Amino acid sequence: MFEAAELGRKVSREELERELPVLRTSLLEMQRALRAAGRAAIVVIGGADGAGKGETLNRLHEWLDPRGLEINAFRPPSDEERERPPFWRFWRALPARGKIGAFLGSWYTAPILGRAYGTIGSAAFDRELARVAFFEEMLARDGAILVKFWFHLSKKAQKKRLERLESSAKTKWRLGPNDWKHFRMYDDFVKVSERAIRKTDIAEAPWLVIEAADDEYRDLTVARSLVERIGDGLESPAEVRPAAAAAASLVSSRGEKTVLDAVDLSATIDGDDYEKELERWRAKVGRLNRKAFEKGVSTVLVFEGWDASGKGGSIRRLVSAIDARDVRVIAVAAPTDEERAHHYLWRFWRHIPRAGLVTIFDRSWYGRVLVERVEGFAREEEWKRAYLEINDFEEQLAGHGIVLAKFWMHVSPEEQLRRFEERQKVEWKLHKITEDDWRNREKWEAYASAVDEMVARTSTAAAPWTLVPANSKKFARIEVLKTVCARLQRAL
Amino acid sequence: MFEAAELGRKVSREELERELPVLRTSLLEMQRALRAAGRAAIVVIGGADGAGKGETLNRLHEWLDPRGLEINAFRPPSDEERERPPFWRFWRALPARGKIGAFLGSWYTAPILGRAYGTIGSAAFDRELARVAFFEEMLARDGAILVKFWFHLSKKAQKKRLERLESSAKTKWRLGPNDWKHFRMYDDFVKVSERAIRKTDIAEAPWLVIEAADDEYRDLTVARSLVERIGDGLESPAEVRPAAAAAASLVSSRGEKTVLDAVDLSATIDGDDYEKELERWRAKVGRLNRKAFEKGVSTVLVFEGWDASGKGGSIRRLVSAIDARDVRVIAVAAPTDEERAHHYLWRFWRHIPRAGLVTIFDRSWYGRVLVERVEGFAREEEWKRAYLEINDFEEQLAGHGIVLAKFWMHVSPEEQLRRFEERQKVEWKLHKITEDDWRNREKWEAYASAVDEMVARTSTAAAPWTLVPANSKKFARIEVLKTVCARLQRAL
Repeated sequence: MFEAAELGRKVSREELERELPVLRTSLLEMQRALRAAGRAAIVVIGGADGAGKGETLNRLHEWLDPRGLEINAFRPPSDEERERPPFWRFWRALPARGKIGAFLGSWYTAPILGRAYGTIGSAAFDRELARVAFFEEMLARDGAILVKFWFHLSKKAQKKRLERLESSAKTKWRLGPNDWKHFRMYDDFVKVSERAIRKTDIAEAPWLVIEAADDEYRDLTVARSLVERIGDGLESPAEVRPAAAAAASLVSSRGEKTVLDAVDLSATIDGDDYEKELERWRAKVGRLNRKAFEKGVSTVLVFEGWDASGKGGSIRRLVSAIDARDVRVIAVAAPTDEERAHHYLWRFWRHIPRAGLVTIFDRSWYGRVLVERVEGFAREEEWKRAYLEINDFEEQLAGHGIVLAKFWMHVSPEEQLRRFEERQKVEWKLHKITEDDWRNREKWEAYASAVDEMVARTSTAAAPWTLVPANSKKFARIEVLKTVCARLQRAL
Repeated sequence: MFEAAELGRKVSREELERELPVLRTSLLEMQRALRAAGRAAIVVIGGADGAGKGETLNRLHEWLDPRGLEINAFRPPSDEERERPPFWRFWRALPARGKIGAFLGSWYTAPILGRAYGTIGSAAFDRELARVAFFEEMLARDGAILVKFWFHLSKKAQKKRLERLESSAKTKWRLGPNDWKHFRMYDDFVKVSERAIRKTDIAEAPWLVIEAADDEYRDLTVARSLVERIGDGLESPAEVRPAAAAAASLVSSRGEKTVLDAVDLSATIDGDDYEKELERWRAKVGRLNRKAFEKGVSTVLVFEGWDASGKGGSIRRLVSAIDARDVRVIAVAAPTDEERAHHYLWRFWRHIPRAGLVTIFDRSWYGRVLVERVEGFAREEEWKRAYLEINDFEEQLAGHGIVLAKFWMHVSPEEQLRRFEERQKVEWKLHKITEDDWRNREKWEAYASAVDEMVARTSTAAAPWTLVPANSKKFARIEVLKTVCARLQRAL
């Protein structure tokens, strides 16, 4: 692969200077167009040590309008970053629509280093690369334009560059502590990088390998390619191909029956038992959470369910059993404009808790395949691919050791009606019932079948759904507490 | 002060249960009213170890709607927090309008511990308290409702509570590692806390000392007081008294002359010298920034100036001289809705760089006393008090060792006109000129006098203004580079 990038291409300083005025105008023009189109551009710069990644970024900072360019250099993660799944730091750095985010030391760094040093095997390496490709494809389908540069140096050229950097006090600091060590591993790195590039050279986010031995050639090529590729990206609309994998039903049709029909809604608990059980399970949740905090195990709980199915009441009883300092409830309503300027999962990633803490989502990312699907807020290809995106997201949480539980609070249409009517009668409950609630009720069947598919596609070993019979509020609350205990217990 | 909180007040469990239904309704009603009014509530809970701050918060989490309540418990700061001024972590946790933020271990913790342990003297303690009072007053004037509880225990009561906590496995974990040590310092803590309360018991954010020996009395009193005080806060509009201190001119009038008239706009530099100087100072900025990075010294640069005064060009030449991985340019435009939901300084606090990095603000918090003042976007009392708020903000940055430089890029009206006309003639510069620019130009005098007052009130020893003669763009760029070098050099 790299032979084509060892041909000794060169551009003279004069040629660069000659090109610059026109090039700069095109770069600025491209930034304006990006802003006008409300598309984000994600520029990844990877490659050999000493190939001049930093220098190129410096030039881009000079040539582009720095106000629309965010340069992200990933140094060792902070403690806040280490306490979340590895991709958290990349999500928090993603550019908003209209901006360019350049990534130096990106999601490629850890897998490549891991493989070159042999700390991960070849299967784990491939799995990481598949996650990377999935991540990039997901961003591209959300409208982001991805441009990925790999700076290549021949072994000889790398040696020369490292020596040159070392020889001058002015550039010596650019030499990383491992640059020479990595040079001695040149052949390993080439092999590993080649595989990384090959496995992630997807249509939505293609690589461009740049011969990096000559500064002017390298920077000119990067700048020209940016104009070209972002320009192309702007011409074609955001990728909207239906995700073929999720097009059809996953589970063979069982007539009109959905998973919800299998929930035994007659389940109930009597008053005295309830009080006893409530105290028992609340105490247990408290104890287990304490232990989780001490061990740095985080918890993410998702509550979905019909309107008036008792999500709020269950959350309250759960929350108050946990030390208040350790828990945060996120009520998911309309996204803010900062949230709208990113991929829909961004607003959830930002709330992933630090080590030992608990985040409870009152409604969640599942809105994508529920309300957004049923009401048509998301296009078909968007909610269809969301199942895979969500599974990947939750797999990352679980993979980081986060305890995950997801509840669908289920009530019958009759019970819902009774609660709606009660809310309308009781003054202080009046605010809990809106026109929307009545409207959603009319779409019961559509929601039920969306829930059915959601459960089929996203109830995984790492993150199973719990369908809670909630015609009896009391029964439901105990069920939720029990489930959280079981999940914590298994993890601790 | 605390005698009145050692009277043995008690409420029985039954009394609490009896009160609860009505109380809970009022709490929820209060939350709805807060949301409807778009006001934030900030609830500080301080007090003796073992007084039950955590327990009270747990109850609040149960009684209130947890979706509108954010509980912030400050444990030891993360590295991202340690790298910023101490108040950064509090700013990032401030609740948005419509929400309640409860603070456990707040801005009071460090000063009180510091003074009780004797690591800070009494003058430093008072200065910290003054900063706290200023901070709270500022938030209150922005519409936040502050409720501050101090949980008091007599020496006997504290001993009893610590013993009780210790005696049961169920509660032992609540005992902090220093609780007994602090108990032995009881008298010191009482003295120090009393002073802290007295110095910060301001009209905008009054304290309420709560006798905390009885759990039910304590929690009931807190809940009732929340309803009452937030209710009162909602009845009176956000505090808008003019800030008396800044009402009049600071510097005696010098007729029509402003500080800008003293800027020598004839300053220029010829072409060859420019290229030489530019390279020289860019190299120097790069070297100094490298050193700053290694020492973990951060830099914040502010650019203000007339339209078309060359801010962008100066920023570009500066930015590209610094390693691109270390610098971020923040172009200040219309705030996002998350930003609008907070105090106006919040959007700037969030961009304060980590250790060793550089943030450049292209327009800044000074908008408050420039465009917002002149265009009437801020009320008179708002922009008048902004001088003090800004000085305090910058003092905190400087106090943390951050290098700060502020530039006003000055051009004559004639030069501005020439540049406007040029922009209209050159196609690729056309986007740089808008109707607003022409409108602002008509208000030259008003802006000039706003700049005059801004410089008079906010050019401080820690954060002086540099007025840059910018009729010659080249001269201006060199001036900026030189100033940044000087500022870095002094700090390193």
